[in-house]
Amino acid sequence: CVTLLALQQSPIDQVAWDQTQILNPWQYVGFATLPNQVHRKNGEERCLGCIFLSVGESGLGKSTLINSLFLTDLYKDRKVPNAQERIDQTVNTIKHTISIEEKGIKVRLTVIDTPGFGDAVNNTESWNPIEDYIDQQFEQYFRDESGLNRSNIQDNRVHCCLYFISPLGHGLRPLDVACMKALHNKVNIVPVVAKADSLTQAEVHRKKMKIREEIEQFGINIYQFPECDSDEDEDFKKQDQILKDSTPFAVIGSNVQVESKGRKFRGRVYPWGVVEVENSAHSDFLLLRNMLVRTHMQDLKDVTGETHYENYRAQCIQNMTRMVVQQKKCRWVESGCRESEKLLHMFSKKRNVDAETRASYIFILPSGSSKPV
Amino acid sequence: CVTLLALQQSPIDQVAWDQTQILNPWQYVGFATLPNQVHRKNGEERCLGCIFLSVGESGLGKSTLINSLFLTDLYKDRKVPNAQERIDQTVNTIKHTISIEEKGIKVRLTVIDTPGFGDAVNNTESWNPIEDYIDQQFEQYFRDESGLNRSNIQDNRVHCCLYFISPLGHGLRPLDVACMKALHNKVNIVPVVAKADSLTQAEVHRKKMKIREEIEQFGINIYQFPECDSDEDEDFKKQDQILKDSTPFAVIGSNVQVESKGRKFRGRVYPWGVVEVENSAHSDFLLLRNMLVRTHMQDLKDVTGETHYENYRAQCIQNMTRMVVQQKKCRWVESGCRESEKLLHMFSKKRNVDAETRASYIFILPSGSSKPV
Repeated sequence: CVTLLALQQSPIDQVAWDQTQILNPWQYVGFATLPNQVHRKNGEERCLGCIFLSVGESGLGKSTLINSLFLTDLYKDRKVPNAQERIDQTVNTIKHTISIEEKGIKVRLTVIDTPGFGDAVNNTESWNPIEDYIDQQFEQYFRDESGLNRSNIQDNRVHCCLYFISPLGHGLRPLDVACMKALHNKVNIVPVVAKADSLTQAEVHRKKMKIREEIEQFGINIYQFPECDSDEDEDFKKQDQILKDSTPFAVIGSNVQVESKGRKFRGRVYPWGVVEVENSAHSDFLLLRNMLVRTHMQDLKDVTGETHYENYRAQCIQNMTRMVVQQKKCRWVESGCRESEKLLHMFSKKRNVDAETRASYIFILPSGSSKPV
Repeated sequence: CVTLLALQQSPIDQVAWDQTQILNPWQYVGFATLPNQVHRKNGEERCLGCIFLSVGESGLGKSTLINSLFLTDLYKDRKVPNAQERIDQTVNTIKHTISIEEKGIKVRLTVIDTPGFGDAVNNTESWNPIEDYIDQQFEQYFRDESGLNRSNIQDNRVHCCLYFISPLGHGLRPLDVACMKALHNKVNIVPVVAKADSLTQAEVHRKKMKIREEIEQFGINIYQFPECDSDEDEDFKKQDQILKDSTPFAVIGSNVQVESKGRKFRGRVYPWGVVEVENSAHSDFLLLRNMLVRTHMQDLKDVTGETHYENYRAQCIQNMTRMVVQQKKCRWVESGCRESEKLLHMFSKKRNVDAETRASYIFILPSGSSKPV
């Protein structure tokens, strides 16, 4: 006997935009472990929060997965565009923010959606708005960091891009390759195989192998899990290896709560069986959530700050230096021109002396000057 | 206890291209009912065979569904292109033909594949090669039919286009709308929702509703089932209504034979249950097969010949008539020009008479002629 309980009636949905949602004791995401991660890295507490970018064509269950990951309802006012709107639509970015509190730990969660991506007949350069968004956040941070008052900078840099790969294709699609290559040096890409409940276990295994091969073949730099410290315990090392071997994570999401055999869980009810979102035998959902929230959130932020942002900053400084050099050159040429003009003016005055005197002048114009001798 | 038996070991796979595959008694497609259909329509037997066009982006299980529908292995030498090949690929058409014999009834089955459709970053006009293929078959038939020896015409006209819609999107994609609108006046389009095992029953219901709405909204003319004769029995009428209400058919295919609880069937084994391809509670697969093979194959061919081909033929004749009229006009203008030249030549000769005689000439040039009076 299986009962479906719409999550619209659960306390989750009473949370509005930018208000704090306090999770029930039975709802456990793992945010409570965040201070340990921060402590683990450098002993000083930081602002708890993370900014995710969710990229993938429509219908891959991106919103549902985000809701399932963070036990929230980030898209309550969402309107799915109709067919005509989908035809006219261009790619844009929409920001959703919510604060979640778990066991006294408050986390500010931001998800950037990219509606319209991959849905048009012609998707050429449809990743440009996404690339621009990431760059704009870096630019803002660079301005703030270079300004006078930099003690309270609002950090909006994107820490992680969840890239949703269709479960249908034979590996990566040309659009996936092009988009990931456009973003891979700007953001930590975590690829996931969406709606994995349409794949049997053998198909999931084959698809993961193929995607990993193609990621390597095309030189796409996805997020690399850090190497384990040698003094970590064996259990931690084993879990870490499982995590690395599971990329790209095959995930299933659900907005529906199912009651079956006395248990309540997020799931999907098919005529041939019930899929449990948080069952490790059914998908990599728990692995992904643990990675994003419990074990690697701080590393995602560190890589963003230390690698992607530093690359952007170095590029900026290089460009600025080049501009300054160019400006200097321009000024030098301009001043050279003015000097030449002056001398030419003097020369034309001297030309007005009578023909006999003029014949005795010899003009030598060395390079960079034009001086009558 | 579930056992997977690869169909590679079954007798199906020993059938080569264009050889006759004789189905086992437990393998029943329904071709044996074809002579009844033919009889039902006009009392005389026709050539048994049908030409299907299979359109949809890669990974929608088109080949698997075709194999499941006709209990065959039409794609045994198929090579799935790798990622680089997929990037470089353009849309083309590939023809597969096989003869199948069931209970003494032989059917020649042709499936036209359209690899590469919908897979590129830019899919603008990617339906053109498909449109061209259909037109070429009409053109060939038109030439043959207009020739001297028309008793043994090879009829390659496409009778049915199985259009595969992704189960992931929120209804039709812009590419689906554009492609179906390009083809709908040339071929019978039968839309199917592919890989429906990724949708719960409620989702299937909603998706079908939405697709039907959008098909109407965009004025797409899909294949319309003929109205039932009033003298048909109630059971037939009921089945016919179920068929009409099920469009677009939500289908599941499989190349794998499963053995479970003493039964063998084509299916898909998930950790949460086993999907049976030929189970009506799991998908519309049986409805689609019955429609294509047992009840509507002859109607699909009749509509192709009587509507789509006749439209093409009328258009051809219209174009030819227009061309003939234009050629006539050209000839008339040309002959008019030659006549004028002659008269001008005569006139210039006459101009050589002396000035007094010349003064008495009055030239009247009525419309269409230039005759000196």
